[in-house]
Amino acid sequence: MQEFTVIFQPGTIKIRAAAETTIMKAMNQAGLGTDFPCGGRGKCGKCRVKVLEGVSDPIATEQAHLTRQELEEGIRLACATKIYRDMVIEILSPGHLQHNILINSAERPFYIQAHLKKLFIETSQPSLSEHKSDWQRLKEALAARGFNDNTLQAPLSLLRRLPETIRQSQNRLTAVLLDSKVLGIEQGDTSAVMLGMAFDIGTTTIVGYLLDLNSGKELAVVSTLNPQAQYGGDVISRITFAGNAEGLDLLHKAVTDAVNKLIGEAVGKAGRKRKDIYAVSVAANTTMHHLFLGISPQSIGVSPYVSVVNQGLVVTASELRLDINEAGQVFVLPNIAGFVGADTSAVLLATELEKSEHVTLILDIGTNGEIVLGSKHKTVACSAAAGPAFEGAQITNGMRGAIGAIDHISFADRLEFTVIGGGNPAGICGSALLDGVAGLVELRMINKRGKFLEPDKITHPQSLRFKDRLIQYEGAWAFLLADSGETLHGRPIMITQNDIRELQLAKGAIAAGVRVLLKTSGLEVEDVKEVLLAGAFGNYLNPHSACVIGLIPRELEDKIRMIGNAAGTGAKIALLSAGEFSQADDIASAVSFVELGSYSKFNTIFAENTYFKLD
Amino acid sequence: MQEFTVIFQPGTIKIRAAAETTIMKAMNQAGLGTDFPCGGRGKCGKCRVKVLEGVSDPIATEQAHLTRQELEEGIRLACATKIYRDMVIEILSPGHLQHNILINSAERPFYIQAHLKKLFIETSQPSLSEHKSDWQRLKEALAARGFNDNTLQAPLSLLRRLPETIRQSQNRLTAVLLDSKVLGIEQGDTSAVMLGMAFDIGTTTIVGYLLDLNSGKELAVVSTLNPQAQYGGDVISRITFAGNAEGLDLLHKAVTDAVNKLIGEAVGKAGRKRKDIYAVSVAANTTMHHLFLGISPQSIGVSPYVSVVNQGLVVTASELRLDINEAGQVFVLPNIAGFVGADTSAVLLATELEKSEHVTLILDIGTNGEIVLGSKHKTVACSAAAGPAFEGAQITNGMRGAIGAIDHISFADRLEFTVIGGGNPAGICGSALLDGVAGLVELRMINKRGKFLEPDKITHPQSLRFKDRLIQYEGAWAFLLADSGETLHGRPIMITQNDIRELQLAKGAIAAGVRVLLKTSGLEVEDVKEVLLAGAFGNYLNPHSACVIGLIPRELEDKIRMIGNAAGTGAKIALLSAGEFSQADDIASAVSFVELGSYSKFNTIFAENTYFKLD
Repeated sequence: MQEFTVIFQPGTIKIRAAAETTIMKAMNQAGLGTDFPCGGRGKCGKCRVKVLEGVSDPIATEQAHLTRQELEEGIRLACATKIYRDMVIEILSPGHLQHNILINSAERPFYIQAHLKKLFIETSQPSLSEHKSDWQRLKEALAARGFNDNTLQAPLSLLRRLPETIRQSQNRLTAVLLDSKVLGIEQGDTSAVMLGMAFDIGTTTIVGYLLDLNSGKELAVVSTLNPQAQYGGDVISRITFAGNAEGLDLLHKAVTDAVNKLIGEAVGKAGRKRKDIYAVSVAANTTMHHLFLGISPQSIGVSPYVSVVNQGLVVTASELRLDINEAGQVFVLPNIAGFVGADTSAVLLATELEKSEHVTLILDIGTNGEIVLGSKHKTVACSAAAGPAFEGAQITNGMRGAIGAIDHISFADRLEFTVIGGGNPAGICGSALLDGVAGLVELRMINKRGKFLEPDKITHPQSLRFKDRLIQYEGAWAFLLADSGETLHGRPIMITQNDIRELQLAKGAIAAGVRVLLKTSGLEVEDVKEVLLAGAFGNYLNPHSACVIGLIPRELEDKIRMIGNAAGTGAKIALLSAGEFSQADDIASAVSFVELGSYSKFNTIFAENTYFKLD
Repeated sequence: MQEFTVIFQPGTIKIRAAAETTIMKAMNQAGLGTDFPCGGRGKCGKCRVKVLEGVSDPIATEQAHLTRQELEEGIRLACATKIYRDMVIEILSPGHLQHNILINSAERPFYIQAHLKKLFIETSQPSLSEHKSDWQRLKEALAARGFNDNTLQAPLSLLRRLPETIRQSQNRLTAVLLDSKVLGIEQGDTSAVMLGMAFDIGTTTIVGYLLDLNSGKELAVVSTLNPQAQYGGDVISRITFAGNAEGLDLLHKAVTDAVNKLIGEAVGKAGRKRKDIYAVSVAANTTMHHLFLGISPQSIGVSPYVSVVNQGLVVTASELRLDINEAGQVFVLPNIAGFVGADTSAVLLATELEKSEHVTLILDIGTNGEIVLGSKHKTVACSAAAGPAFEGAQITNGMRGAIGAIDHISFADRLEFTVIGGGNPAGICGSALLDGVAGLVELRMINKRGKFLEPDKITHPQSLRFKDRLIQYEGAWAFLLADSGETLHGRPIMITQNDIRELQLAKGAIAAGVRVLLKTSGLEVEDVKEVLLAGAFGNYLNPHSACVIGLIPRELEDKIRMIGNAAGTGAKIALLSAGEFSQADDIASAVSFVELGSYSKFNTIFAENTYFKLD
């Protein structure tokens, strides 16, 4: 039997369809709805599709329902056009659920295509003359709904439940399928109930989104700090802690327990039940990914920093002790490398970089900054070890972006800052450090090496008003942001010479990563047409400050767009669409990972990029 | 990509091969050895195959190595001939392991085609410039051995063991695969070690065969009484006992414990290790099948007697708590109906009824007699409830075919019998009851209704000498086999009027089943060209006696052949060949099951067949 590849757009749902079957059948096979008003008899002309590639001559039915112009544009009827070659198809009929997810202001369209299918069926009643097994009757009921009963499989656990369920339900059942595996059977018609949760598991924070898998509707958002923090604040310390089986198990249990708790919280908020959750998707950095799965991340922590597995995985919820429906499956997005994880794959899935005509730079800035540069032609990525400065750690008055943190600073006529939650400040977070240092650069109060000018050397007209904020701290100059009387704790808040040094190392690492990716790709800064900032920090920073300090090349300031928690968005898309989830593997494996440590001139490039540009 | 069906014979190994690949590649794909002396370069001319269907014109390489006659006969080189259509191929090259299993005197040839493949591989060493994940490197090493790395899958349990194993083994590993699933990894090269066990799980007895999966060699045979007997002697009483979860669990545990014990015994006998067993195959009647899997057999026990599942199943050994290699898989043969089980499928697989040109009758006689009638054109089967007479139960002096049982009786010049184990008898078993009653029929000492003639009515010349063996027992005549002085327990052993009645019911049920199958198929007795007797009783009975009493139609006496424990043979074939195991599903589903209870004239036919033919 000959088969062809059929791709449905928008988004990317790819299936192999048997030759000479109709597009309608292929849509059914792809799980793209079954809303064909006339039942596919060529009577209503509603099942319109646009054949973008692989169009064939229309048949009479199509000529009757479509105008000449439509036919010329490749518009056909799904019930009439048969598949004779590889095809790319856009579905135009209204009954097929196309879904949009907002990435801040941009829309990301895709088809909802459930991983698990639920079908309400009625199995036949056995008799002495019709003595098929329970499983056979179940298969036949599913075959009547378009499944190939030769390939249907049942795990033993399902077969053990089958005889009682089929009889108690009086042959009225809902089957839960993953591809051709019947994972669950439920009494009566429960096909309308199908929830899922998308998770973005970060080193610091875990965010979960409860979605209705049928409609795509978001029902609740929940988040928690990652309880693994008790065993180590960053990725490296957790890898160390997971160095033995007990440590690995503690970390694995900590994160799965947290996920279970979030699931409980989400269904509580939405007034739903745990058992109605059939699918979970997960985006995470590579170490969080491994710990969530109970896989040792040791190899990520030592050169050459390889992961155990990158490929996207489907794991049963029970293997991970997730308390959801017993048929529940977990869809784990693919990693790209040891320090470019499934969270980056999720960002790429959300942003569709692989379809972009123009070169785009994507930054997810944190302790490890993930940097991706590419277009539909080629994509490269690296991880830059920025250190903790952006998260406010190892900064004299640094703190996380929590209540009490100065988050933004401006140097207009006078120094102004905003405090998260209002009131007097308790410290500064990464975004404020960026603003502060950017201001000092623009005011020429520090030199290109980041060193404070002596107060008597400050000549820039707009700087003079801030000169008296220069104070001595531990034998060097510092810039006073808030005096002891203006702070929550009664101690002054300042940006010290050391803080600037820390920021230089951090921004230098990211900037050097960007430079290396450009060089690797044979591109110049000018070739980059768009910069997307993902993640919490990227969403919070002032793009102008980032460009002034050289975290992002200055030439790109007007091309910056914030895309929020794009990893979470990618996880949601992967949860709602099986095609998109499997597309993530293609996306991830198409990315060329560049190990900065093995790039010959990295140290020079890094050193250059710790400087500030003052011209 | 176009695909075609390629079938390798003898036996039946069926694969789907991509168009334009060579037969050699298809042989590799099918797991049929890789012994191509010149590496498939068309130099040696050794890789001969005979294309039985779908032959194409030879290419120059083939013309150089093969004679004109060979070419005309369809002989080709596997490395040269490409696949452009569906093909049936016989492999002639010596390096490809064809295996014969003896079914008593007949050979049953098939190819060994392991379910699980073991491949010794060396994974690459990761470096800063080559930073692929452990799993990716494993996949690539397997891809170099011909696997499609896009379809390879790893269960979570494998991924959790992977990083440690890959490093401890210093990249020298043996991978254990089932299709495209990597189920196990072992340090170093263990590819030569691959054992399996085939089980025939009967209601009374469990037999296990330890086989070398690479060579097909039988290493040990073990057996035990089915310990489920403590909860009920027959299928019906066990179904009743399994009526609640505790009972089901006790029965399930009893049989799996017994199987585990037999595995230990077999590896002990052969001096091998449990962990070297990777595959187990199972043939069993439907109830034993369900209990082994922990599936409730309730529905088998009540009308319309349907099973929960018939289809052949692959289950992990760990799900069944079988203590073998952690990658171990259990291959459970398909059932046909509630009372025609996987043991019958195994018999059909062993006997290749589906390839038979002539009509064959297969009988597996026991408490439930399974009867199959068919040929390559059509096969029907039924189950006849014979009751326990054949097993010696409910017979006045009846006993199992154990030590002390009279097993055969002859009425030559004088009455002679043999006793199992020698010495004085303790009772009679089924085969002796058959001989005894057959003798009484031939001597006309009973009438067509099975009633003893009054001694004074006995006129048959050869009967006169046995007349004085007629004694009175419980108000009716009985035939004395051994007087009190000649028996082990000092009580007389006889065949009573009631025993004859029991045998009539038993043989009537089987004979009626045969008649119904003949009628259903539109066949006459004369159309049957061969009668195969399977199972312990069938192997033990005297075919002449069986024909005299009408258990088997008299016309067929010369066509009877004993095939021993053909269910065990089928289980062995299914263990050694994945293609044959999957073929069993086709075989089983092609059998039309006839429910005798719903056959309108069954009672009449049954009553007629309880009689004896005296002419």
